[in-house]
Amino acid sequence: MLDLVSLRRDFHMHPEVGFTEFRTATKVVEILTSLGYEVIFGQDALDGPSRRGLPAQAVLEEAYERALRDGANPAIAEKMRGGFTAVIGVKKGKADGPTVAFRFDMDALPVLESKDADHFPQANGFRSQYEGNMHACAHDGHTTIGLGLAEKLADGNFSGTVKLIFQPAEEGVRGAYSIVQKGMVDDVDYIFCHHLGVNVPLGEVHGGSHGLLATTKMLAHFHGVSSHAGASPEHGKNALLGAATALLNIHAITRFSSAATRVNVGVLEGGTAANIIPAYAKMIVETRSESEEVNAEVEKRVRNIIASAAAMHELDHEIEVIGGAIPINYDDEMADLALEEARQVEGFHSFKKGEYNAMGSEDASFLIKRVQDRGGKGTYMSIGTDIPAPHHHPKFDIQEEILPRAVELLTRIAKRLLT
Amino acid sequence: MLDLVSLRRDFHMHPEVGFTEFRTATKVVEILTSLGYEVIFGQDALDGPSRRGLPAQAVLEEAYERALRDGANPAIAEKMRGGFTAVIGVKKGKADGPTVAFRFDMDALPVLESKDADHFPQANGFRSQYEGNMHACAHDGHTTIGLGLAEKLADGNFSGTVKLIFQPAEEGVRGAYSIVQKGMVDDVDYIFCHHLGVNVPLGEVHGGSHGLLATTKMLAHFHGVSSHAGASPEHGKNALLGAATALLNIHAITRFSSAATRVNVGVLEGGTAANIIPAYAKMIVETRSESEEVNAEVEKRVRNIIASAAAMHELDHEIEVIGGAIPINYDDEMADLALEEARQVEGFHSFKKGEYNAMGSEDASFLIKRVQDRGGKGTYMSIGTDIPAPHHHPKFDIQEEILPRAVELLTRIAKRLLT
Amino acid sequence: MLDLVSLRRDFHMHPEVGFTEFRTATKVVEILTSLGYEVIFGQDALDGPSRRGLPAQAVLEEAYERALRDGANPAIAEKMRGGFTAVIGVKKGKADGPTVAFRFDMDALPVLESKDADHFPQANGFRSQYEGNMHACAHDGHTTIGLGLAEKLADGNFSGTVKLIFQPAEEGVRGAYSIVQKGMVDDVDYIFCHHLGVNVPLGEVHGGSHGLLATTKMLAHFHGVSSHAGASPEHGKNALLGAATALLNIHAITRFSSAATRVNVGVLEGGTAANIIPAYAKMIVETRSESEEVNAEVEKRVRNIIASAAAMHELDHEIEVIGGAIPINYDDEMADLALEEARQVEGFHSFKKGEYNAMGSEDASFLIKRVQDRGGKGTYMSIGTDIPAPHHHPKFDIQEEILPRAVELLTRIAKRLLT
Amino acid sequence: MLDLVSLRRDFHMHPEVGFTEFRTATKVVEILTSLGYEVIFGQDALDGPSRRGLPAQAVLEEAYERALRDGANPAIAEKMRGGFTAVIGVKKGKADGPTVAFRFDMDALPVLESKDADHFPQANGFRSQYEGNMHACAHDGHTTIGLGLAEKLADGNFSGTVKLIFQPAEEGVRGAYSIVQKGMVDDVDYIFCHHLGVNVPLGEVHGGSHGLLATTKMLAHFHGVSSHAGASPEHGKNALLGAATALLNIHAITRFSSAATRVNVGVLEGGTAANIIPAYAKMIVETRSESEEVNAEVEKRVRNIIASAAAMHELDHEIEVIGGAIPINYDDEMADLALEEARQVEGFHSFKKGEYNAMGSEDASFLIKRVQDRGGKGTYMSIGTDIPAPHHHPKFDIQEEILPRAVELLTRIAKRLLT
Repeated sequence: MLDLVSLRRDFHMHPEVGFTEFRTATKVVEILTSLGYEVIFGQDALDGPSRRGLPAQAVLEEAYERALRDGANPAIAEKMRGGFTAVIGVKKGKADGPTVAFRFDMDALPVLESKDADHFPQANGFRSQYEGNMHACAHDGHTTIGLGLAEKLADGNFSGTVKLIFQPAEEGVRGAYSIVQKGMVDDVDYIFCHHLGVNVPLGEVHGGSHGLLATTKMLAHFHGVSSHAGASPEHGKNALLGAATALLNIHAITRFSSAATRVNVGVLEGGTAANIIPAYAKMIVETRSESEEVNAEVEKRVRNIIASAAAMHELDHEIEVIGGAIPINYDDEMADLALEEARQVEGFHSFKKGEYNAMGSEDASFLIKRVQDRGGKGTYMSIGTDIPAPHHHPKFDIQEEILPRAVELLTRIAKRLLT
Repeated sequence: MLDLVSLRRDFHMHPEVGFTEFRTATKVVEILTSLGYEVIFGQDALDGPSRRGLPAQAVLEEAYERALRDGANPAIAEKMRGGFTAVIGVKKGKADGPTVAFRFDMDALPVLESKDADHFPQANGFRSQYEGNMHACAHDGHTTIGLGLAEKLADGNFSGTVKLIFQPAEEGVRGAYSIVQKGMVDDVDYIFCHHLGVNVPLGEVHGGSHGLLATTKMLAHFHGVSSHAGASPEHGKNALLGAATALLNIHAITRFSSAATRVNVGVLEGGTAANIIPAYAKMIVETRSESEEVNAEVEKRVRNIIASAAAMHELDHEIEVIGGAIPINYDDEMADLALEEARQVEGFHSFKKGEYNAMGSEDASFLIKRVQDRGGKGTYMSIGTDIPAPHHHPKFDIQEEILPRAVELLTRIAKRLLT
Repeated sequence: MLDLVSLRRDFHMHPEVGFTEFRTATKVVEILTSLGYEVIFGQDALDGPSRRGLPAQAVLEEAYERALRDGANPAIAEKMRGGFTAVIGVKKGKADGPTVAFRFDMDALPVLESKDADHFPQANGFRSQYEGNMHACAHDGHTTIGLGLAEKLADGNFSGTVKLIFQPAEEGVRGAYSIVQKGMVDDVDYIFCHHLGVNVPLGEVHGGSHGLLATTKMLAHFHGVSSHAGASPEHGKNALLGAATALLNIHAITRFSSAATRVNVGVLEGGTAANIIPAYAKMIVETRSESEEVNAEVEKRVRNIIASAAAMHELDHEIEVIGGAIPINYDDEMADLALEEARQVEGFHSFKKGEYNAMGSEDASFLIKRVQDRGGKGTYMSIGTDIPAPHHHPKFDIQEEILPRAVELLTRIAKRLLT
Repeated sequence: MLDLVSLRRDFHMHPEVGFTEFRTATKVVEILTSLGYEVIFGQDALDGPSRRGLPAQAVLEEAYERALRDGANPAIAEKMRGGFTAVIGVKKGKADGPTVAFRFDMDALPVLESKDADHFPQANGFRSQYEGNMHACAHDGHTTIGLGLAEKLADGNFSGTVKLIFQPAEEGVRGAYSIVQKGMVDDVDYIFCHHLGVNVPLGEVHGGSHGLLATTKMLAHFHGVSSHAGASPEHGKNALLGAATALLNIHAITRFSSAATRVNVGVLEGGTAANIIPAYAKMIVETRSESEEVNAEVEKRVRNIIASAAAMHELDHEIEVIGGAIPINYDDEMADLALEEARQVEGFHSFKKGEYNAMGSEDASFLIKRVQDRGGKGTYMSIGTDIPAPHHHPKFDIQEEILPRAVELLTRIAKRLLT
């Protein structure tokens, strides 16, 4: 039987960012295979060109090599090389029935994990071994839960089909879209996605959550002309002046009365040396809103600000979309069903739906929307855990007792629908 | 006999930035040795702790490996490992006499060289092979001239001593100070430093130049707190907002009526991902002025702006000085002597001194100042070449016919003083 | 009988901004007196030192003279001179009973009214005669409704006391606090405040509204040093550079996940001439939030940004609070009662409560809070009218048919409670 | 005989800014008339449409009324009403000869004069009576010197013609151009303009000065859309965000290696109230450079920044030129002649030419250029006085002993050329 805590800690120590989950995904393939699942992965599981915000080739290769060094199965990993890190486990039951899917995201964040003595992973010897990367958003837990669920359903004692989707690159909302585009959920009747934490305490379950926002992630490039900063500064065209002006004005985009919004310039990099007028800068921006229309309007304003800031300093510019999501509208029936099952699981004592747990974004939205568009149903659940620090924080952590409870909850949901 | 054009083109194809001139410097050591010079290099030639703006260890190692791959003599390079890339060639003449020093800088710039068909190095097959680095400031020519001079003086037919100083990391004004601190010019009676180009056309020589500015190079760090940009932006402390505000306000520092000034934010880098409030940013800033006092005042204002921008966004910050220079006051007698000799060299037909050729900075200033402080004399010359684009520009180039003429001029200066 | 449309148009043509409502308030006194009300006004109706954001003495005087020229009763106006423009009408009924208060705000905005032919007041000859001021927030309607209500209740055929509060300076949330401080609502058992429009269409009534935000209005002063911009710019300390930096960064204050917020720099003025480094600038800033605590945090950030921007440019600064409000928590019982009565009024067909109609602020909050703190009850209603342009817009207007319906609604509420 | 000190103090107490010099100019007319000069003034002395940066009509009228209250001769002032405040005194000598012109500027600055006890005008009871305006640039002295010179030449004992030009609106370089356009210097053979102070100490005279810069003064308007800052901020288009972004980026225009430059945003005003998104802002900007071409390039960059900042926030904008000057190239012969005469005046002991005294601008440049273009000669002199604070500073002052010496110097120059 799988040791969930050990599994989670192993994932926690080897946090791999979006599309570089070579080690994590090969482990998932190995376990699913050993449990008797049909396993679809690599280019069979996602549509390459639909991936958004793919890292540079060199980054992919470096992570690939690291995964091999740290125990990834080379034969499996080979099929994922270049960032094809989706894995889908399929188990047909002993009788016919509907297809029920669950989604688990596997990627980590570029956050430097805390070394403070009171940080649980540090204190217990399973802090990130990949300096600068961290599972600061519970995806180590999600992946573990997915494997726990796989184990529970491995006997096929149900009517219908289970589809376990292990998704790359949820951070930056980049990976799910390529799985949808590959048609992986076109046969799904019910889909359940979830997140641990998100302001929900241990013992509480939300059968359907609001507040999962439309979002657009953009990468902007500013191209100017370098020149000697002492001898001829006036011959330069200063890319950083344009980028810094854009940054301030993007943050200054006004609030909207019609829907909550978010803007963030997550990355700004430019210039090469103290004495050279910076000829190039790049900037990663994200917009969000409860409303798809308002998000589109904020995105439009960001684009106009970037274009105007570039024009102001006589720069050329381009903007690439590197990620995106849409809002989630959960099906009430699925949310209620999830809560009914949760009431049967020891350890859960508070049951809600329809709350705004958090203002994040989720590309699970694409998976759920596709299922809904084809006549199916779905929901997005929040499963509580107390957390010592917010998501994405260097001291984020989950309570490991939630792992078996979440497995039990999802198992119950699957069996309820597959009878 | 040395083929100056081939030498220059070889250096041009292998541009190494400050303190990574492993391949260039080992070539210099080899040639000086073959010419019978006493060669001082590595930790013997500079004071390690006095180096400013040393690259990160990983960068040094990567450049070191590259140099070995590209033909650097391993036995010599070994002594330079870690950024000890100064080389000093010493030749004692057949009789006693004064010590005359010449300075040649060897480092390149982080500029992406043009691939345009009308760019001479591209058209003639010697464009940079180190993508993103470029000899865009004529130091390939300077190093070549130094070796040409070494050859001319190799017979020792003079009275006194010649000291040829091949300096690392002139860009960013980081290297000369460590050579001074090692005492390398404490025995020098006369010192000549020069630059090709700097707005002086082919055929013109300036025996002494004004406009070499006091400068300070600073590296600022901004430390905030990361947070999820959608779920809890208010818990973050945004390092990029602080840095961008500082950047704009640094550029907005007012002109001074009392002396020309320059400010530049050459580098800004911060943040990790679209959906994380950026917790860290760094910024490289330089200030310059004709006046040491005004430069100090501008530096003070930069420091205050950075501190205030950090406080504005509740960030911690530190500022490191990573480079600096002082103004150059040339000795009239040396400038006149240089012009007298220039009149004897075919190809020179215009002779000036005391002009403001350019507003750059030079850490040759530390070498000249030390010689002057100990009773010696020195000057800083500009030797003309037409250039198709400004210094530090992707299409910068020199005219190669200047190389032998410059060698002849320096040879004449040396012999004049060593009789 | 009062002609409500004529009254409203007369007020519309003579829009007086906060604390300068001399003409409006004297008309109110005259009409209330003629209807047999006890009328409290001038220093008897508000506490002078508690007024926030009082205009400069010269502005008060100029408006006072204008009011006299335009027909204000001099004997009444004299008691309001200097900005004491509150009026309270009191009518005791024929029997004892509770005290019921209604609030009507009288002030206009510094908005330049549209001259477009399709703007109703322009087309019908009652556009603002005070160029640059405009009733763009329906207070002309509110005042008219208050007088209409006074007429309906003039016979005293009820049990208890009616108190009609005509408030100055609601814009900028500056006036109500001084009425509270004078004790004017200390004897009130029930209080009803309302606004026309606010995204509610004609025919709809909201018995209690959410979304009335905590707010702080601040006036910041930046003090630098002037200097000749050509001859000695470096001797200046530039107040506008500090203020503009603050402005951008105030707008860039992040969104809060815990509560909606607003920030605005409504006014920035500084400098005197092209060739002088600006020595002084002032800035008016407002913050808002659904949450009093979050508003306090945003105010804290604004203060820190202003202080840091001043420090960045070596400026002195001060910050004055010139206005403020708290959120409104309406009493459910009062909201229900209001809706019950609304159902009896012809022309109303949609009835709601608890919606977020708009994200404004109201210093009616202080009146309601005081009544509640002393054991009374209150609510804040939105009474619908279609509007051709948003509140505060140059083409804002109301539908005049709402005036008699609102009067009838308020009359019913009063009589219901006074029986 | 004129009491120069009393005259100067009277002017100092009544400082009138550009084109509002009604009181000053009428005094000048009266004195010139009493001395027997032909006096040209009002619309006869300048071309109305060529005036740049004329104040608003209401400002002109207010200043006009004030001048009448403070003793301006109504009959004379009437002809200046509306800003026609140039005065030209002409005296023909007893014999034929060349025409020699001198220029004196009369306008004051919008600077609040110091009340410090150590400020000489405060201590001696002649501080500005027009609060907020100040003679902080010595034009009170210039006007006084012009009248002193008029007295010395009143007897007509010379051969040729003297033309004394009393110019309005030198600050902002707005007035001289309209005098040139009226043809007032078309008959002039020699012209002498000067300034007191400008970094030249008492006792020193500069016969010809460098450093009088090309300049452009611009008034930019930003037009957005107002909206309620709480209820619907997203419907506004924020003029102050555009203006503040422009302000920061204008100050951040890079230094030029080819010529000294200056930029200043002297005025920024926008917005109406705390709770309204600002729909309008205006900005006054000046650029300067030693080089007419570089000034044109800086002006071009300012225009691009303003246009881009407006576009960034979806604003309309316009830019008006409200002032300008060109560099001055003095005639060596005139500078030498002035210095020869200065050597004859007691109190002068240091004599220079060709220095960069200051980085100001002067529309005397248009007067001198027109004379030179028509074959005449001219120079711009600096006449020293020690000053306790820089020009345009609240504590600026001149030493009054310079007044008779300057009169003697100019008298000598006139007589030398008119013999």
